[in-house]
Amino acid sequence: MSAYTRYTEGLAKLEEIDGEAGRKVIDSLQAIAPDLARYVIEFPFGDIYQRPGLDLPQRELATVAALTALGHCQPQLAVHIHGALNVGCTPEQIVEVIIQMSVYAGFPAALNGMATAKAVFAERGLLPDLKSDA
Amino acid sequence: MSAYTRYTEGLAKLEEIDGEAGRKVIDSLQAIAPDLARYVIEFPFGDIYQRPGLDLPQRELATVAALTALGHCQPQLAVHIHGALNVGCTPEQIVEVIIQMSVYAGFPAALNGMATAKAVFAERGLLPDLKSDA
Amino acid sequence: MSAYTRYTEGLAKLEEIDGEAGRKVIDSLQAIAPDLARYVIEFPFGDIYQRPGLDLPQRELATVAALTALGHCQPQLAVHIHGALNVGCTPEQIVEVIIQMSVYAGFPAALNGMATAKAVFAERGLLPDLKSDA
Amino acid sequence: MSAYTRYTEGLAKLEEIDGEAGRKVIDSLQAIAPDLARYVIEFPFGDIYQRPGLDLPQRELATVAALTALGHCQPQLAVHIHGALNVGCTPEQIVEVIIQMSVYAGFPAALNGMATAKAVFAERGLLPDLKSDA
Amino acid sequence: MSAYTRYTEGLAKLEEIDGEAGRKVIDSLQAIAPDLARYVIEFPFGDIYQRPGLDLPQRELATVAALTALGHCQPQLAVHIHGALNVGCTPEQIVEVIIQMSVYAGFPAALNGMATAKAVFAERGLLPDLKSDA
Amino acid sequence: MSAYTRYTEGLAKLEEIDGEAGRKVIDSLQAIAPDLARYVIEFPFGDIYQRPGLDLPQRELATVAALTALGHCQPQLAVHIHGALNVGCTPEQIVEVIIQMSVYAGFPAALNGMATAKAVFAERGLLPDLKSDA
Repeated sequence: MSAYTRYTEGLAKLEEIDGEAGRKVIDSLQAIAPDLARYVIEFPFGDIYQRPGLDLPQRELATVAALTALGHCQPQLAVHIHGALNVGCTPEQIVEVIIQMSVYAGFPAALNGMATAKAVFAERGLLPDLKSDA
Repeated sequence: MSAYTRYTEGLAKLEEIDGEAGRKVIDSLQAIAPDLARYVIEFPFGDIYQRPGLDLPQRELATVAALTALGHCQPQLAVHIHGALNVGCTPEQIVEVIIQMSVYAGFPAALNGMATAKAVFAERGLLPDLKSDA
Repeated sequence: MSAYTRYTEGLAKLEEIDGEAGRKVIDSLQAIAPDLARYVIEFPFGDIYQRPGLDLPQRELATVAALTALGHCQPQLAVHIHGALNVGCTPEQIVEVIIQMSVYAGFPAALNGMATAKAVFAERGLLPDLKSDA
Repeated sequence: MSAYTRYTEGLAKLEEIDGEAGRKVIDSLQAIAPDLARYVIEFPFGDIYQRPGLDLPQRELATVAALTALGHCQPQLAVHIHGALNVGCTPEQIVEVIIQMSVYAGFPAALNGMATAKAVFAERGLLPDLKSDA
Repeated sequence: MSAYTRYTEGLAKLEEIDGEAGRKVIDSLQAIAPDLARYVIEFPFGDIYQRPGLDLPQRELATVAALTALGHCQPQLAVHIHGALNVGCTPEQIVEVIIQMSVYAGFPAALNGMATAKAVFAERGLLPDLKSDA
Repeated sequence: MSAYTRYTEGLAKLEEIDGEAGRKVIDSLQAIAPDLARYVIEFPFGDIYQRPGLDLPQRELATVAALTALGHCQPQLAVHIHGALNVGCTPEQIVEVIIQMSVYAGFPAALNGMATAKAVFAERGLLPDLKSDA
C-alpha cells in the first residue's frame, strides 16, 4: 500500500472512529511535531485499524482495556471511550471492561479509568440512562 | 451471594475458562498462601467473570490486551491465552489483539506478548495451521 | 462469610480507615458503576483489610509505598495518606516511606508522591509542625 | 557525613539486611559497573536505610510492597524478602503484604510476587511450617 | 568526595542544568521533606550528572527518553525538557527523542510527552520557529 | 515513500543497526505473526530510524535509556545494546546511560538493565577490557 493510501485511509478511519476527539489530537501536534500526527494516522489508523480479524468494537474494547491498565494515558483513554461509543460499543460494555481491569491492574487503575469514562459519558449525555439502571 | 456460592461458582468458572493452567495456579499457592488462591477463585472468577454485559471471549480478549500491555505478567498472559482459546477465541483474534498493543504499549510489549502466544500455540499444536495461513 | 457480612464489615472498615475521602470515592461511582463501588467495599475492605497478620498502620504504609512507586495513582495515594493518618501513622512515617521509594521507583515517583502528601498534610493543617521539625 | 562513612556504614547495613544475597548483587557489578555497586551501597544503604523514622522491618515491608507492585523486579524482590526475614519480619507478614498488592497492582503482580516469596521461603526451609499453618 | 562537596557541586550542577525549574522543585520540598531535596541535589546532581562518559546534552536526551516512556512523570519531564534546552540540546532533538518513544512505549506515552514539550516550548517562545519549519 | 521503499530501507536499517539479533527477532515472528515482523521493519526502522535530527548512536542511547527504565523489556534491551555497539556507541556510554536510570526508574531497573548489558558485553568479549578499567 502506498504511503498516500495509508495516510488517506488512515485519516478516514480516524474520522470514523474518533471523530472530533481524533481531529483535536492531530491538530494539537501541528505546531510542534506534524510528523508524529502523520505517524498516528498512518500506523495505528492506516495499518492496524484497517486489519481484518477483529471488528472495530472488538478493537476499541481491547484499547480501553489496555489504556485503563496502563494508567498513565487518561487523555487517550477518553479519546478511545468516545471511539468505542462511536463504533457501536455500549456504555455497559465499556464499564464492564474497566471493572474487569481491577483484577489485572488493581483497583486504582480501574477507578481512574472509570472517572475518565464518567466524564466522557457525561459529555455525551449518557449518564442519566446509566443512573436509572443502577 | 454467599461466600460458598462465590467460591463454588468461581471454581467452576475457573475450570471452564482456564482448565489445567488455572488448576496449576491454584495448586502452586496451597503451600504458601491458600487465601490468595481463594481470592483468585472468589473475586475474578466468582464475581467478575460471572457478570453479564460481556461474553467470555470478549472478556478474555480484554485480558489478553491488558496483560500484553502491562508487560510484566507473562505467566498470567500464557494462562489467559489458553483461556481465550478454551472459550472460543481464534488464534487469529489473539494475534490481532497482541499486534494492536504495539500502538498502545510499544513494540517490545507486543513482541514479548507474541512470544508467549507462540509458546502457548505450539503447546496446543496450533502453529502449523497459522504458518500455512501466513 | 456471607456477602452481606463482607459488605457491612467492609463499609465499616472503609469508614474507619478512609472516612470522608473513602465515602467520596464510593459516591462518585454510584451514577456509572455502583458494582465497582460494591467490589471496593467487599474485596479490599471486606476481605483484605479485615485480615490478621498486619495491623492497619502496617497495611497503610505498604499501600503508600506501592501507590507512590506505581506513580499513576495520585488520587488513591491521597486517599490512603489520609487513611494512614486516620489509623495512627505519623506524618514522619509517611514521609519516610515516600523518600524510600526514590530507591525503588526513582526520584520522579518519590517527588510526585511527596507533592500529594504535601497537599494532604496542608489540608489537615499538618505542615507547620513538620516545617518546624525540619 | 563523609563519603567514606556513607560507604562503610552502607556496607555494614547492606550486610546486616541482605547478607549473602546483597553481596552477590555487589559482586555481580564489579566487572561492568563498580560505581553502580558503590552507589547501591552509598545511597540506599548508606543514606536511606540509616534514617530514623521507620525501623528496618517497616522499611523492608514497604520495599516488598513496592517491588511486588512494580512487577518487573523479581530478582530485587527476592533479595528483599531475604532482607525482610533477616531483620525480623515473619513469613506471615511478607505473605500478607504480597496478598494486599492484589488490590493495588492486580492479581498478576501479587501472584508473581508470591512465586518469588515461595522460592525464597523454600530456599530457607520455611515452607513446611507455613504449610502446617494453612 | 565529602558530603559537603557533593551538595555544593550538586547544587551548582542543578542550577546549570535546570535553573529556575530546579529551584522550584527544591523549594517545594522544604516544608515537608528537606532531606529529599538534599538527596536530589546530592545523588542525581552531585553524583550522576558529575560523571564523565556522557556530556550533559547526551544525559538530558536519555532522561527525556526515559521520562517520556515511563509516562507518569510529566512534571519531571517538563523540568528536564527545560534542562535539555539549557545545556544545548535543540528543540528538534527533543522532539525526535519523544517521537522515537512511540516505538518503545506506545503512542499515548509519546503524545503525552509531546504535549509537555509543547507547553515548555511555548513558555520559552520556541513554538513559532518550530511551526515555520513544519 | 512507498510501502516497498519503507520495507526495503527498513530492512537495510535493521541489518545495519541490529544485525544478527534483529534477524532473529524477525525470524521468530514468521510462524505466528509475519505482519508484526513487517511492521517492526516498516515503522521503527523504515520510518523512525531513517529520520534526520538525531544520529544513530544518539537514537540507540535513547532506546537503551527507555528500555532500561521500562524494565519489562530485557530481550529488546539486549538487542539494542548490541545495536548501540554496532553503530558506534562505546560500552562506557551504555553503562553510563544505565547507571543514570537509577535516578529516574530506581535501582532495580538499573540493576536489571546492567545484568542485560553484562550478558551482551560478555557475548561480544568486551568484559575483560571493562574490568581492567574498573
